[in-house]
Amino acid sequence: MNPKRFEDGLAVRRQVLGDEYVNKALADVDDFSRPLQELVTEYCWGEIWTRPGLERKTRSLINLAMLTALNRPHEVRIHLRGALRNGCTKEEVMEVLLQTAIYCGVPAAIDSFRIAREVFQEAEKNR
Amino acid sequence: MNPKRFEDGLAVRRQVLGDEYVNKALADVDDFSRPLQELVTEYCWGEIWTRPGLERKTRSLINLAMLTALNRPHEVRIHLRGALRNGCTKEEVMEVLLQTAIYCGVPAAIDSFRIAREVFQEAEKNR
Amino acid sequence: MNPKRFEDGLAVRRQVLGDEYVNKALADVDDFSRPLQELVTEYCWGEIWTRPGLERKTRSLINLAMLTALNRPHEVRIHLRGALRNGCTKEEVMEVLLQTAIYCGVPAAIDSFRIAREVFQEAEKNR
Amino acid sequence: MNPKRFEDGLAVRRQVLGDEYVNKALADVDDFSRPLQELVTEYCWGEIWTRPGLERKTRSLINLAMLTALNRPHEVRIHLRGALRNGCTKEEVMEVLLQTAIYCGVPAAIDSFRIAREVFQEAEKNR
Amino acid sequence: MNPKRFEDGLAVRRQVLGDEYVNKALADVDDFSRPLQELVTEYCWGEIWTRPGLERKTRSLINLAMLTALNRPHEVRIHLRGALRNGCTKEEVMEVLLQTAIYCGVPAAIDSFRIAREVFQEAEKNR
Amino acid sequence: MNPKRFEDGLAVRRQVLGDEYVNKALADVDDFSRPLQELVTEYCWGEIWTRPGLERKTRSLINLAMLTALNRPHEVRIHLRGALRNGCTKEEVMEVLLQTAIYCGVPAAIDSFRIAREVFQEAEKNR
Repeated sequence: MNPKRFEDGLAVRRQVLGDEYVNKALADVDDFSRPLQELVTEYCWGEIWTRPGLERKTRSLINLAMLTALNRPHEVRIHLRGALRNGCTKEEVMEVLLQTAIYCGVPAAIDSFRIAREVFQEAEKNR
Repeated sequence: MNPKRFEDGLAVRRQVLGDEYVNKALADVDDFSRPLQELVTEYCWGEIWTRPGLERKTRSLINLAMLTALNRPHEVRIHLRGALRNGCTKEEVMEVLLQTAIYCGVPAAIDSFRIAREVFQEAEKNR
Repeated sequence: MNPKRFEDGLAVRRQVLGDEYVNKALADVDDFSRPLQELVTEYCWGEIWTRPGLERKTRSLINLAMLTALNRPHEVRIHLRGALRNGCTKEEVMEVLLQTAIYCGVPAAIDSFRIAREVFQEAEKNR
Repeated sequence: MNPKRFEDGLAVRRQVLGDEYVNKALADVDDFSRPLQELVTEYCWGEIWTRPGLERKTRSLINLAMLTALNRPHEVRIHLRGALRNGCTKEEVMEVLLQTAIYCGVPAAIDSFRIAREVFQEAEKNR
Repeated sequence: MNPKRFEDGLAVRRQVLGDEYVNKALADVDDFSRPLQELVTEYCWGEIWTRPGLERKTRSLINLAMLTALNRPHEVRIHLRGALRNGCTKEEVMEVLLQTAIYCGVPAAIDSFRIAREVFQEAEKNR
Repeated sequence: MNPKRFEDGLAVRRQVLGDEYVNKALADVDDFSRPLQELVTEYCWGEIWTRPGLERKTRSLINLAMLTALNRPHEVRIHLRGALRNGCTKEEVMEVLLQTAIYCGVPAAIDSFRIAREVFQEAEKNR
């Protein structure tokens, strides 16, 4: 592990996914899941999300499209929350998901819209 | 067919993919491919790409990520050219493709990087 | 939106997916989901499902195969119900799903068989 | 190997894919590819394609949809030729591929339309 | 059906997936699911898993990787239990899943790690 | 970049993929592809392939299965060559690919068998 990159990654991860989520992920870590947690924090967050070449907001929108294409609903949910935290508007999320209907097919878009509605309702409750 | 939306879609399609590509696509149309050409022009371009809610540049970046995830190299190539036409920089394309390495896996990113290098070389020749 | 095509699409959608499902989908619509609902109704149902070139029954069987390949269980369930409404027999559904075992792999077929059994049990209860 | 089912499978495979293709496949067989050839002939053709529950024509249409979803262009091409041999019309193939645009996304449909045009041109030449 | 191969397949299936699981699968069989159960037992288990060319342990590890790539969580769970029964260690499973993070992308690995933790907890309880 | 891990990764990458391939990849590097090359060498090779928990031979077999599932023919080819370099036999490769026929579907297995035959013929020529 590269401690500097891990720390940088952890900081971005906290900013995007929220302390609550990250604290829970860290508290749950055991010997089995530690190598994955470290890999994800260091590479995904420390190596890619820290790069200055794209706004975080744009990275969030790209992720919503990719995760819809990849059919990974758990991650769609987490990154929808992250998108809100990164300043994406409901309208921008809607635009991205409409675009997935064309390129990934209608069923993919329907699945992500369903999750998005739940995330927006939850966010409105917590305001 | 909705002629107004078809025309609007065709105009955006020409702006994004270029007259040369679109003229060729239209010239090639026969009874077999006409319904698809109309569907794509009207819905994909006339319905989605004309929407004001996201910049075209952002739509291009999202498409590069999605098409990489979907493993559709022909479309990756066409939309790389479209991304340049929409004002995306080489650096932004690189950032999107690096992000696909993490979420879609390394082989997906390698395949799109290979196509992107060819498109950039071709674009530099044509300048 | 093209109102004529939306209405035509809505009529077919009701015939295939049932009034109960469609009424619920419409009642749930809000500003976030309206554009997708309109796109799906107009494009998917009004543009494709209204085409006379294939029997609806055949379109249902094709959808079951595609949705199994695409790994979209929510839509598999909805279109299984639609297949029954379109006159597909249990035997025809079984044949399609057996064919998916060969082409999409055994895990894909097992997942769709599981959903199909539930849908058939539900349909037998409601008779 | 079950010789009876292998022979039954081989007969259907010849009827659907043509003697020329199957003779070439058999002539190419070596120790490395024999187990796959036997598995495919027996399992795919002898076990599934021989089943009476669906018309061969319907099985072909289902395959075109599934193979488009699965993104396997070599097999799309082979099964397009098989679809013609099984009596599917150009119009029916077009309908199936239009339906894939909605459910699998536009890039998937475009890729299969491109292959289909080539197969139809080749078929028209050989008439 | 080839009764000899079915019996051989059933024996391996019991050894890998356990009597409890297989008894339940057999007890649940009805006319709708019987052809799939027979196909899976005979081909998947009787034809492939009985082959001597790879250790069962290696087949289990390969399956965990493939099923993660294919995004089939029900089967990931079943084959995680099978992997333990085939003598794979927790460490080996972890290594395979870390490798999926690179090739299938981080979201795929996270989904399978989550299931794996549950299966290991369940296995530790039952010891 | 972590230079130590990059160097370790580069050494394993050379052992698995061969000096010729890696020299060519490094010679081709430009500003656009450098970040991906570094990420892949460090993350994929330095972080995962250097781990002692699985034999390299097993990692190769797992990769062939995953890359077949992921439908990435360029990488299937490269990792087939790597598998031979890691000591996998032709028979072991055949077993893995037969297993993909069941889990990923027959078209996936056919595509990888075709590439494997070419790689084996090339390897036999070069002996």
